Amino acid sequence: MYEDRIKPRSLWSKVVTPEEAALHIRDGMTVGMSGFTRAGEAKAVPLALAERGRREPLKITLLTGASLGNDLDKTLAEANVLARRLPFQSDPALRKRINAGEVMFVDQHLSETVEMLRSRQLGPVDVAIVEAVMIKEDGSIVPTTSVGNSATFAMLAEKVIVEINLTLSPVMEGLHDIYIPTRRPFRGPIPITRPDDRVGVPSIAIDPSRIAAIVITAKEDSCAAIQPPDAETKLIAGHLTEFLTNEVRRGRLGSSLAPLQAGIGSIANAVLHGFLDTDFHDLTMYSEVLQDSTFDLFDAGKMVFASGSSITLSPERHDQVLHDIGRYKSRLVLRPQEISNHPEVIRRLGLIAINTALEADIYGNVNSTHVAGSQMMNGIGGSGDFARNAYLSVFVTKSTAKGGAISSIVPFATHVDHCEHDVDLIVTEQGLADLRGLAPRERAAVVIDTCVHPEYRDLLRDYYRDAERTVGGQTPHRLDRAFALHLAYQTHGDMRRAAEVPEAAAE
Amino acid sequence: MYEDRIKPRSLWSKVVTPEEAALHIRDGMTVGMSGFTRAGEAKAVPLALAERGRREPLKITLLTGASLGNDLDKTLAEANVLARRLPFQSDPALRKRINAGEVMFVDQHLSETVEMLRSRQLGPVDVAIVEAVMIKEDGSIVPTTSVGNSATFAMLAEKVIVEINLTLSPVMEGLHDIYIPTRRPFRGPIPITRPDDRVGVPSIAIDPSRIAAIVITAKEDSCAAIQPPDAETKLIAGHLTEFLTNEVRRGRLGSSLAPLQAGIGSIANAVLHGFLDTDFHDLTMYSEVLQDSTFDLFDAGKMVFASGSSITLSPERHDQVLHDIGRYKSRLVLRPQEISNHPEVIRRLGLIAINTALEADIYGNVNSTHVAGSQMMNGIGGSGDFARNAYLSVFVTKSTAKGGAISSIVPFATHVDHCEHDVDLIVTEQGLADLRGLAPRERAAVVIDTCVHPEYRDLLRDYYRDAERTVGGQTPHRLDRAFALHLAYQTHGDMRRAAEVPEAAAE
Ligand SMILES: CC(C)(COP(=O)(O)OP(=O)(O)OC[C@H]1O[C@@H](n2cnc3c(N)ncnc32)[C@H](O)[C@@H]1OP(=O)(O)O)[C@@H](O)C(=O)NCCC(=O)NCCS
Ligand SMILES: CC(C)(COP(=O)(O)OP(=O)(O)OC[C@H]1O[C@@H](n2cnc3c(N)ncnc32)[C@H](O)[C@@H]1OP(=O)(O)O)[C@@H](O)C(=O)NCCC(=O)NCCS
Repeated sequence: MYEDRIKPRSLWSKVVTPEEAALHIRDGMTVGMSGFTRAGEAKAVPLALAERGRREPLKITLLTGASLGNDLDKTLAEANVLARRLPFQSDPALRKRINAGEVMFVDQHLSETVEMLRSRQLGPVDVAIVEAVMIKEDGSIVPTTSVGNSATFAMLAEKVIVEINLTLSPVMEGLHDIYIPTRRPFRGPIPITRPDDRVGVPSIAIDPSRIAAIVITAKEDSCAAIQPPDAETKLIAGHLTEFLTNEVRRGRLGSSLAPLQAGIGSIANAVLHGFLDTDFHDLTMYSEVLQDSTFDLFDAGKMVFASGSSITLSPERHDQVLHDIGRYKSRLVLRPQEISNHPEVIRRLGLIAINTALEADIYGNVNSTHVAGSQMMNGIGGSGDFARNAYLSVFVTKSTAKGGAISSIVPFATHVDHCEHDVDLIVTEQGLADLRGLAPRERAAVVIDTCVHPEYRDLLRDYYRDAERTVGGQTPHRLDRAFALHLAYQTHGDMRRAAEVPEAAAE
Repeated sequence: MYEDRIKPRSLWSKVVTPEEAALHIRDGMTVGMSGFTRAGEAKAVPLALAERGRREPLKITLLTGASLGNDLDKTLAEANVLARRLPFQSDPALRKRINAGEVMFVDQHLSETVEMLRSRQLGPVDVAIVEAVMIKEDGSIVPTTSVGNSATFAMLAEKVIVEINLTLSPVMEGLHDIYIPTRRPFRGPIPITRPDDRVGVPSIAIDPSRIAAIVITAKEDSCAAIQPPDAETKLIAGHLTEFLTNEVRRGRLGSSLAPLQAGIGSIANAVLHGFLDTDFHDLTMYSEVLQDSTFDLFDAGKMVFASGSSITLSPERHDQVLHDIGRYKSRLVLRPQEISNHPEVIRRLGLIAINTALEADIYGNVNSTHVAGSQMMNGIGGSGDFARNAYLSVFVTKSTAKGGAISSIVPFATHVDHCEHDVDLIVTEQGLADLRGLAPRERAAVVIDTCVHPEYRDLLRDYYRDAERTVGGQTPHRLDRAFALHLAYQTHGDMRRAAEVPEAAAE
């Protein structure tokens, strides 16, 4: 049964149990695992590792592409195996340990981790664990539903463990495009000039002698945990598609727009879903994770090509797409996240980038990561890679959270992942703020008028007017009241009670 | 006298007075002017414009490369000519009007302004005013001591006014490399792979029929207003060169390091000056403004090539370099700021980027622009272009300002231009914090131990410990005390009195 999955016969002897493979990983090591937005993670060895972690002292630094599926981050965290974790995660159990200071989480721009590894500013990587559909004659590895950082992990690691996943069809060969920038100072341009350019090779080339173990698995990716579009996300999608329709009318964009990027999560998926109800056509994506909406747009004949680093689908879509992958293959490419998120390519192609904010301030600075400035949600992910270099950088969010007790638009963002310079549009179900070419005072007026929930409009208008009158400046702020809404939520469970929070200034 | 400066005889009739040329500019227009870090600005027409502004209603949107010399921003601001100003300035009189809300200042990443103009997200540009050493036979324009955004302004504007500056030698021809990225979606890679690559043409090609007026001037650039290195900036330079020496020793860098970028201002200049006292050799720069330190490194035989967008020198250096420009020409290139600051090239070359912070917080988020969160100093300039994509992103600052009454390291930055992900090292005269690969809690410990002035160390340590204990999280913050130092400065004129500031929370 290995013949068609492990072509080099010399490697058959490397097939071992997950437990045996996990023995290559020792206390204190740095391990690079495949897996990006719950797609394509190694499924068996990490569990064996967790099992060992429950019995013996075993702490590792875990690098991945992005988040892992199948509750692996939870399992590893609960087994106390994780000393350090980078560059992204989205698991509630791990998040809890990170916020308790038990796991050191190094949140990074997703395009940058491998730059730091290659230049030895991070690392070295001791062991790489990569999920694959097959190992080819030349020993090269064909990844599965994500590429993430797997190629660089496999190239840099001292030892490589390959997990062959039998649930995935060998037809996936050819889906991936592995391109690694050459070493500085001899690095040349990345030759991608269109989303559908293939510039690399279809598998991860490594010296087969570094393959230390091979494990056979038959477990599927977990499905996406996203919510279907609701009334509010539909409104957000509507505002954005209306805006884009106007841009087309003004001649700033053609009716195929520009290559689209859409962030992780329910809102971004819902917004992309909204493109189904438009006249745009021949759309393309140059994105990170491809969610249901991408395939809905393919099936509706609206999308012609999508480039990403992973495919993460709902239960409804999962089997259909993966069993039918041959049908989509010519319209898809999966790239290393360094390339899907590369500033060079993003800037060149001129993307429309749609990412989600946890909160934005009235001037358009965006917090995508930290609840109340301290508690990590998931991580910055690729949002910075895309927002900084996009042709049009859009942030979407519902105007309130927690049943209205939190306004997503606040006077002062409690953490800034994306500064005002990187935010062109903010869209909530209330409306769309077009901030291009505006100064901060103008931005505040537009954001408050269009994006804020009516229940918070007076509160924010009062803050702005007071700051403008008493402090002034390019970006008027009252430092003694900047966090009054957040403090009201902390104290009273409701930001609407901000007026009850005393000022901080000593008078 | 025009023969060698205005080669096309057909253009001689366009030579007019500054006042006549200024008549092309009417109320409400958008004007793009040459000028970058006080170098190469048009010197006569803006003054005529200001003169008219004092007599008649005249408000314009002024776009430049960056800051203007010869007090032009002051003169235009005081004549009330400026309705809007972008993307950078550094003039105290204009700053005052910006902070009073009288001039709308759109602070932008310096590489991005022309992207927005070309895609018509900003603009259109009615008139461009460009300083030149000559107009060539083909009507193309040879710029002077800066390129900035001049090429794109001249290409996009309906009318072009050229100021021929007779104080500058025609020998400057060949110093510039004008490259404009092709239009999306047909854009190709920018083919620069080394700081000394020339990829464009030496002059700005425009249809001569769009040259509406030519003005002859004989005024020099103003000199740089920077302070010479002092005891503290020498310590900062020492910490950084020691760190880099160790990186070389560890094999992470060669003894020519990587191409250097150094920001504007006294501190960055002093730091670069510190490279004179090292064993590094064959240094190169891929930077924005080239200051005295670049030429000192040339003369000392330490630097082999420097790429920038402008040359701004002290009174001592100014005449020598400009009169001797032929001697330096083969080791210099001036590029459009879009290219000197382009994320694509910065990332490819892997720069060591050295920029200055106004303040940094204990987690390494940097404020380069807003005093106390509200008052604009200069603007983000190119610091974001460089910091985000550098191989090594360094921020330097003295640990205190205003005689010790302000700590430059604070609990929470009052404005975030550079998020923690874009800041690898923070260096003050106290020491150097190497933040690479650290989680926020670890970053705080290192920053407090190494960078903070001893008078503030306990204050910051207390803040951090209290936040960690009472709030926790990935990035522990007490929102009720986050700005206590700033409020103490506002109330008592001294951040050291932060303990006297009551908390903001409603208990
Ligand atoms: C920001 C982000 C968390 C939003 O996720 P989402 O699923 O689309 O958005 P939701 O509105 O469902 O919010 C998720 C949770 O945050 C909560 N939330 C939203 N805004 C909040 C706020 N201002 N304050 C506190 N909590 C908030 C929601 O209530 C919800 O909580 P729950 O899980 O307990 O129900 C997510 O997009 C993210 O992690 N982004 C950063 C990484 C990134 O952008 N990558 C993009 C490149 S792929
Ligand atoms: C940050 C910046 C203002 C520092 O300039 P500098 O001349 O090197 O630094 P200085 O320490 O002399 O500070 C300049 C002024 O800010 C004041 N200052 C410094 N830190 C301060 C702080 N934390 N709070 C308030 N004021 C502060 C200084 O006291 C000084 O004031 P003065 O002019 O009244 O004497 C300048 O580098 C800048 O504008 N940077 C943003 C743009 C940029 O980085 N471009 C780089 C790419 S070219």
